[in-house]
Amino acid sequence: KYDPRSLDPAGQTLHGDHAYIRYQIPVDHRRLPLVFLHGHSQFSKTWETTPDGREGFDNLFLRRRFAVYLATLPRRGNAGRSTLPIELKATPDDQTWFDRFRLGVWPDFFPGVQFRQDTETLNQYFRQVTPDTGPFDVEVSAASVVALLDRIGDAILVTHSQGGGVGWLTALGSAHVRGIIAYEPATNFPFPQNAVPEPLDSSAGPLSARSVSEDAFGRLCRIPICVIYGDNIPEQRVEARGHDQWRVRLGMARKWEKAVNDAGGDVSVVHLPQVGVNGNTHFPFSDLNNNQIADLMSDFLHRSQLDS
Amino acid sequence: KYDPRSLDPAGQTLHGDHAYIRYQIPVDHRRLPLVFLHGHSQFSKTWETTPDGREGFDNLFLRRRFAVYLATLPRRGNAGRSTLPIELKATPDDQTWFDRFRLGVWPDFFPGVQFRQDTETLNQYFRQVTPDTGPFDVEVSAASVVALLDRIGDAILVTHSQGGGVGWLTALGSAHVRGIIAYEPATNFPFPQNAVPEPLDSSAGPLSARSVSEDAFGRLCRIPICVIYGDNIPEQRVEARGHDQWRVRLGMARKWEKAVNDAGGDVSVVHLPQVGVNGNTHFPFSDLNNNQIADLMSDFLHRSQLDS
Repeated sequence: KYDPRSLDPAGQTLHGDHAYIRYQIPVDHRRLPLVFLHGHSQFSKTWETTPDGREGFDNLFLRRRFAVYLATLPRRGNAGRSTLPIELKATPDDQTWFDRFRLGVWPDFFPGVQFRQDTETLNQYFRQVTPDTGPFDVEVSAASVVALLDRIGDAILVTHSQGGGVGWLTALGSAHVRGIIAYEPATNFPFPQNAVPEPLDSSAGPLSARSVSEDAFGRLCRIPICVIYGDNIPEQRVEARGHDQWRVRLGMARKWEKAVNDAGGDVSVVHLPQVGVNGNTHFPFSDLNNNQIADLMSDFLHRSQLDS
Repeated sequence: KYDPRSLDPAGQTLHGDHAYIRYQIPVDHRRLPLVFLHGHSQFSKTWETTPDGREGFDNLFLRRRFAVYLATLPRRGNAGRSTLPIELKATPDDQTWFDRFRLGVWPDFFPGVQFRQDTETLNQYFRQVTPDTGPFDVEVSAASVVALLDRIGDAILVTHSQGGGVGWLTALGSAHVRGIIAYEPATNFPFPQNAVPEPLDSSAGPLSARSVSEDAFGRLCRIPICVIYGDNIPEQRVEARGHDQWRVRLGMARKWEKAVNDAGGDVSVVHLPQVGVNGNTHFPFSDLNNNQIADLMSDFLHRSQLDS
């Protein structure tokens, strides 16, 4: 029983594990809204102003008359209230992100990288990182997005990195997902349980696929999906773990593209350098050429009849 | 030295302890922007939509043609990256907040409380709580707001609870603070070092004032300040610690009002029930009568010539 004279947790409850959503709906908006899901270590800022202070996909697609929903997923940032504990260690790791997000090999930028190379941009970039306030759980995150779609109806998901897996699982759990654009999805590629590929080995460890039922897999075969990867992904194994993990993620995406399309689906994996777009990092949508990246997304939405 | 083959923190850096700011500037805006500082356990959501889904001070004051800057202060929510560690325990404490924020005595609401008494409103209210991602430090928080004002120039601070202390310290550190509206400031009332009052004792422990130099104190005497407290603050000591702490905070605010005004300043402490406004909780700006509370704030801004 709760005693108001104490701070004793006995008899008390805890609400948590929700997403936090900020949305803007422009006048004369298009029919389907865009729901943006950030990646690992990130929050909605991913889609807001860029590290060098320009407009990100939030404003760019509002200007293109889409309703924009920016999620911060459970146990992160403004959705910080978690039902499970965690220890935050404040470990210095800026350089790990510099490498993993493919700005270059610290302290050197990749030649031609689409990132403004000044101190203040890097300062802002490092400060976009925010810790998990509870253990990351892709199913908890997907459940929060399913709950959002229960409320707002049909929508297009735009995902990044770790949020890619959240997007796939959301589409398995909600008929409201009408299309997905996935920037550099990292983990949790879902395959039918009888056709799960072997893990792919990298310097950062093995990358496993996710096993789902045939029925669930079938749901991913009914919507148009575009998967985009940037530049400077090694073709052969390299020792720098931050870079090598993208080699196997792109490899897994290619296997997944084939599996979905062989089952009648509509996935296209676009490796940007192969279509003549060079220098993109792990964040194409906030890179220096993000207007060009936005145009490619608009083209996909139009081609897929998702922009009416 | 940093080794890209490892996750070793050796040779790595860490950027943190910043605030996260979201702002909107309406067309034909008034001269001075409003900078909103949330309280303990809260983030910018405090000022956004209300727990029952109405517009909060964010939209209400945009409609009144103010530029609005919503801060999330360092080591909280979207400003989660901290340079110091902390352990997050996910302790059940909803009922502690229900009492401390003066909705009532759990599970009963105060009669006439300005809060919609349904399950979904309470659900949203509890989910506004988010943990500290590092130790709260009022000086780190104030430094982040001083840095914001260095960038945007003169502004009016609107503070809540723990953010009240951040507001006072910001005004000590920046000549850009042109006025302050403080809702239920809780701690860190600054007094000149030779006139610091004795701590005030409550069921929640003693409340101390903060000692600052005569010079620093003088800066608070040069700007108009309005301090507002809601209803259901006990006049005599009660055992419920969540309620009793407000008795001594209002008491300290009265002492501070006298100290500043005796030194030539312009502070008015408004206890809402004494001006005929009843039922307000610790969050008057999101209570059911928040339009009335906004009108009182507009009146103060107009009277103080801060709304041109």
